[in-house]
Amino acid sequence: MRFGLIGAGFIGTVHANRILSEPRATLTWVFDVDQGAAHKIAGLTGANIATSIDEILSDKEVDAVIIASSTDSHGVIARSAIAHGKSFLCEKPLDRTLQAAQETAEMTLSAGVFGGLAFNRRFDRQHSMLRDSVVRGDIGTIEMMHLTSRSQSPPEIAYAMNSGGLLRDKGAHFFDLACWIAQDHPVQVYAQGDCLFEPRLAEIGDLDTAMIILKFSRGALCHFDFSRRTAYGYDERIEVFGSKGRIVSGTPLPLEVVSYLGDTITRAGLHQTWFERVEPTYKAQLLAFIDALEGGGKSFPNVIDGLLAEQIAEAAQQSVNTGNAIHM
Amino acid sequence: MRFGLIGAGFIGTVHANRILSEPRATLTWVFDVDQGAAHKIAGLTGANIATSIDEILSDKEVDAVIIASSTDSHGVIARSAIAHGKSFLCEKPLDRTLQAAQETAEMTLSAGVFGGLAFNRRFDRQHSMLRDSVVRGDIGTIEMMHLTSRSQSPPEIAYAMNSGGLLRDKGAHFFDLACWIAQDHPVQVYAQGDCLFEPRLAEIGDLDTAMIILKFSRGALCHFDFSRRTAYGYDERIEVFGSKGRIVSGTPLPLEVVSYLGDTITRAGLHQTWFERVEPTYKAQLLAFIDALEGGGKSFPNVIDGLLAEQIAEAAQQSVNTGNAIHM
Amino acid sequence: MRFGLIGAGFIGTVHANRILSEPRATLTWVFDVDQGAAHKIAGLTGANIATSIDEILSDKEVDAVIIASSTDSHGVIARSAIAHGKSFLCEKPLDRTLQAAQETAEMTLSAGVFGGLAFNRRFDRQHSMLRDSVVRGDIGTIEMMHLTSRSQSPPEIAYAMNSGGLLRDKGAHFFDLACWIAQDHPVQVYAQGDCLFEPRLAEIGDLDTAMIILKFSRGALCHFDFSRRTAYGYDERIEVFGSKGRIVSGTPLPLEVVSYLGDTITRAGLHQTWFERVEPTYKAQLLAFIDALEGGGKSFPNVIDGLLAEQIAEAAQQSVNTGNAIHM
Amino acid sequence: MRFGLIGAGFIGTVHANRILSEPRATLTWVFDVDQGAAHKIAGLTGANIATSIDEILSDKEVDAVIIASSTDSHGVIARSAIAHGKSFLCEKPLDRTLQAAQETAEMTLSAGVFGGLAFNRRFDRQHSMLRDSVVRGDIGTIEMMHLTSRSQSPPEIAYAMNSGGLLRDKGAHFFDLACWIAQDHPVQVYAQGDCLFEPRLAEIGDLDTAMIILKFSRGALCHFDFSRRTAYGYDERIEVFGSKGRIVSGTPLPLEVVSYLGDTITRAGLHQTWFERVEPTYKAQLLAFIDALEGGGKSFPNVIDGLLAEQIAEAAQQSVNTGNAIHM
Repeated sequence: MRFGLIGAGFIGTVHANRILSEPRATLTWVFDVDQGAAHKIAGLTGANIATSIDEILSDKEVDAVIIASSTDSHGVIARSAIAHGKSFLCEKPLDRTLQAAQETAEMTLSAGVFGGLAFNRRFDRQHSMLRDSVVRGDIGTIEMMHLTSRSQSPPEIAYAMNSGGLLRDKGAHFFDLACWIAQDHPVQVYAQGDCLFEPRLAEIGDLDTAMIILKFSRGALCHFDFSRRTAYGYDERIEVFGSKGRIVSGTPLPLEVVSYLGDTITRAGLHQTWFERVEPTYKAQLLAFIDALEGGGKSFPNVIDGLLAEQIAEAAQQSVNTGNAIHM
Repeated sequence: MRFGLIGAGFIGTVHANRILSEPRATLTWVFDVDQGAAHKIAGLTGANIATSIDEILSDKEVDAVIIASSTDSHGVIARSAIAHGKSFLCEKPLDRTLQAAQETAEMTLSAGVFGGLAFNRRFDRQHSMLRDSVVRGDIGTIEMMHLTSRSQSPPEIAYAMNSGGLLRDKGAHFFDLACWIAQDHPVQVYAQGDCLFEPRLAEIGDLDTAMIILKFSRGALCHFDFSRRTAYGYDERIEVFGSKGRIVSGTPLPLEVVSYLGDTITRAGLHQTWFERVEPTYKAQLLAFIDALEGGGKSFPNVIDGLLAEQIAEAAQQSVNTGNAIHM
Repeated sequence: MRFGLIGAGFIGTVHANRILSEPRATLTWVFDVDQGAAHKIAGLTGANIATSIDEILSDKEVDAVIIASSTDSHGVIARSAIAHGKSFLCEKPLDRTLQAAQETAEMTLSAGVFGGLAFNRRFDRQHSMLRDSVVRGDIGTIEMMHLTSRSQSPPEIAYAMNSGGLLRDKGAHFFDLACWIAQDHPVQVYAQGDCLFEPRLAEIGDLDTAMIILKFSRGALCHFDFSRRTAYGYDERIEVFGSKGRIVSGTPLPLEVVSYLGDTITRAGLHQTWFERVEPTYKAQLLAFIDALEGGGKSFPNVIDGLLAEQIAEAAQQSVNTGNAIHM
Repeated sequence: MRFGLIGAGFIGTVHANRILSEPRATLTWVFDVDQGAAHKIAGLTGANIATSIDEILSDKEVDAVIIASSTDSHGVIARSAIAHGKSFLCEKPLDRTLQAAQETAEMTLSAGVFGGLAFNRRFDRQHSMLRDSVVRGDIGTIEMMHLTSRSQSPPEIAYAMNSGGLLRDKGAHFFDLACWIAQDHPVQVYAQGDCLFEPRLAEIGDLDTAMIILKFSRGALCHFDFSRRTAYGYDERIEVFGSKGRIVSGTPLPLEVVSYLGDTITRAGLHQTWFERVEPTYKAQLLAFIDALEGGGKSFPNVIDGLLAEQIAEAAQQSVNTGNAIHM
């Protein structure tokens, strides 16, 4: 599979490295408005540096493009890819507004290309083991869910301004996970959020802390808690409570070293950063995307999933803004 | 200390047994409309059987009464106790309606008697160790909290009908815990609830499953999840997330027996019933109540705490009824 | 069941309290050379104070005696009980020397009384759950075992002098557990021991630290580690490794309170003293002893078990003394 | 750093891959009597295929050789390297017999080359974190240690025949770890071993199960248990018990997924194979070896360490053979 990469920042570099180490994939092109960034990835991988996105999209040898550019450019690039008949893997969100995302999703489906969304957490071994168990029915009918994601430290303000805010930027990943695990969609959304510790996020109208409750169409209640800063590392967990039991994908503790001193027991803590925690998902995601391209995309998160996650994020934001629960 | 016990059902028997095994306490009287129940406790403890509540309240030797009668009779009995100048320990709720509870609370304070609420979970060693740590500031400023309480099996419908429903019956304990730990009170309440598995609760307008989000006056968000049935025992947990760290009072696992077979590890599970889990709290509560009577009641949950818990439960119920967040 | 108690020290008081709280049992007599100690238990339980052991043994109403006197008096008292046709529950060891213990065991069996040994750890819920699993064959054929017992602090020297030393005093309990779990007996014993921290034990020729390896008749290897002092509470654990898996009865952690601060996780530690850890075994042991008296003693540790534990302790001591492995 | 690799089997390939992914290292040569194996590594890494070991040792550009050939050839190759003035990293054992190993060690030291032993477990993050804590004195004076290593499945018999047997093949790694952690050496060794499940190992006079007790010169007791087969994955653990506390490097559980069903809790188990468990140590070992070559070898396991581990293994084997404890 030959890939073109659009966007050579942090996440673009992650994609490039995974392609480099995967025998089934080649990185043919890289593009970034920041030429230095593109050069770095080209040096690393041997990819050609494109002078425009169209140069990549016009190359018939390219099987798919990876859209890892700045958040507000995803939709425009996805539409160009569609126009060139190219499949794509797009970092969330699919587009800038819900309306635009809906149109892009519809265009993708009509065009018959495969549009994948980079919901990498679906490829986490723990989370997918949890979902397999839930789908098998091990814990019966889902009644309640909890998803926690607490970053070690707040994003750069420049990034945050462009990110759509906590509920869209972080939220979309976990709204997607919840729908994917529950195999359901919400009918009602309530969110409470605030800036409790990071005034610079408050200045740009963003949140640093939020709790959300979804009501799924089949009745289950689903709670999320998000924070932009912990004092103890990156904390991501999922719990599903069902009629026959409970299953938890917990926070892994990478070092099993435990001390017993006096009346306390002390052990090494969590992964400190989100990237340490989720790094293995990028390789698994790439392999699954290649499989999806070869097999027609079954079971890889797609534009419809991307749209749904954005709709929930939008409803959650509206709930914070109005103080009311939002029907979907 | 000499006690009179009003109500000889399950929880009355628990109180009687604790008094029996405590050298500082004597059970002088027991009353129940069900004379057989009163006889049982009398036989067990040597207490006198009262023919009326007044008989107990008029006995000058009695230091305090324990109100463990049916839920709807608490307020009337508490007011009689106040009228007789007797201190009391009252199972929640303090009274049938919020209005009545407020009046009873005010009467208690004016009368100068000590009115304790039997929020026994405050005397759980784990929960109080967690609170001590929070109050010391170990985890900094509270930003988020979670409280989970999931019963093994639904209550008898006859009990449920009289209980005020899930949010008042179970909720009050955990709303009290949250305010006690946070040393704060909520300004907004949102609740989602449903009957997902127990149609008999639906018939009487009650819930079997609920999630609630409180917004505290100092900004912290607090989430609760309640269920009336698990397939894996009684599950009660508290998490507090603060600016400097996180502390958890987890679900104790009473038997540390672990098997390693093939690719899985299996261990003995949770306490099966709520009573196994919280039994030690009743002894600690009795000792603390005696201390409170001797020392003027400092640091024992009182009528004001009872009233606050009821107010939150009321707001949560109203939120479920209306679908909106409720300001307090 | 009516019991006579001989020995009113710490462990005698434990037995007395258990009898007091058990409806099926009555403490009729108590004897101790220290009359004050006997008075205390009499005051607590209503038992009569005997002026001699014979007074108890001659009382036809007494079903069995509990021998909780000083270590070196067990055998003499047990033989008197046998002579009077009384069943007994004897704290280990059964007698002062191996030779004496063998004779006492044989006398017990010939006399047709039931002689139980107070190997209370067999009645630990964790350990018996582990044994049930092993006996069911869950982990296949036993290949290796580990038993750990580390006290929080050394015994009084006066006690230690009379105790037979670490290998007999502490060891006997765990040698018995190992044989009971493995349903086997050792054919070879090797022990290494030393005084690493408590010179007062060295002065009386005792050990504070020891490791022992048994070779069982069916081939399994079994390791023990003993210490008379930890800096982190009382630590008792059993591991059994078999052809189909592994099972562990671990050290219970009584308070499930966990803090996450920075890069470490801290939690409340172990039971601090051995008695906190094993206290529930005494009630279970009493009930099982009553069952044994009523049912003929099946499945309660008896004089033969006591003798075997003593033989292993003796071999271990001999191994320490000579530096060689000892064949049994 | 330019390396020559001697031995292109499983472990040679591991070394080659680590060198390939490390910018500071280049694999210049590879040699194996099996030319196909050498070709594979050459194809993977671009290394030249040597027609003899001397061809590598005579290349002045080569900084060090890695000796990963069959167990019985290590010593001869090491001596050739020494004769050519080449530093080396040698898989254990250093040589075929204790006598030979001692001579090779002495030759290494006189020649002024650096001879490293591939005791890769010293570079395990957990084990080195444990050792750092012990060396800092966190748990005080060491009194007891336990080291467990249980493989998932027995080695090929062809491998086992050449390996020196369980106590030398597996044992050497853990004897080295114990001395390294304790910063001490044993004065007495006792071992018990048997073939409990693998008759093919019995046929060649090897063991499948063993327990060993070392007595260190400063008094601490150290226990090892080894098995060639578990039914639950690869199990490696270290415990150190000291005067101020206890520290454990436990068996990591790679997937934190836990199910609660009925009265049991089930979770994903151990790494299944030893290689999954220790894989990261090879990278860390390579980096440390490069540092050692650049810095003179401080703190990398050397020939003296290799000799000590072999001496302990030898004594343990002798103890099994004679049934007696062996003085060192």
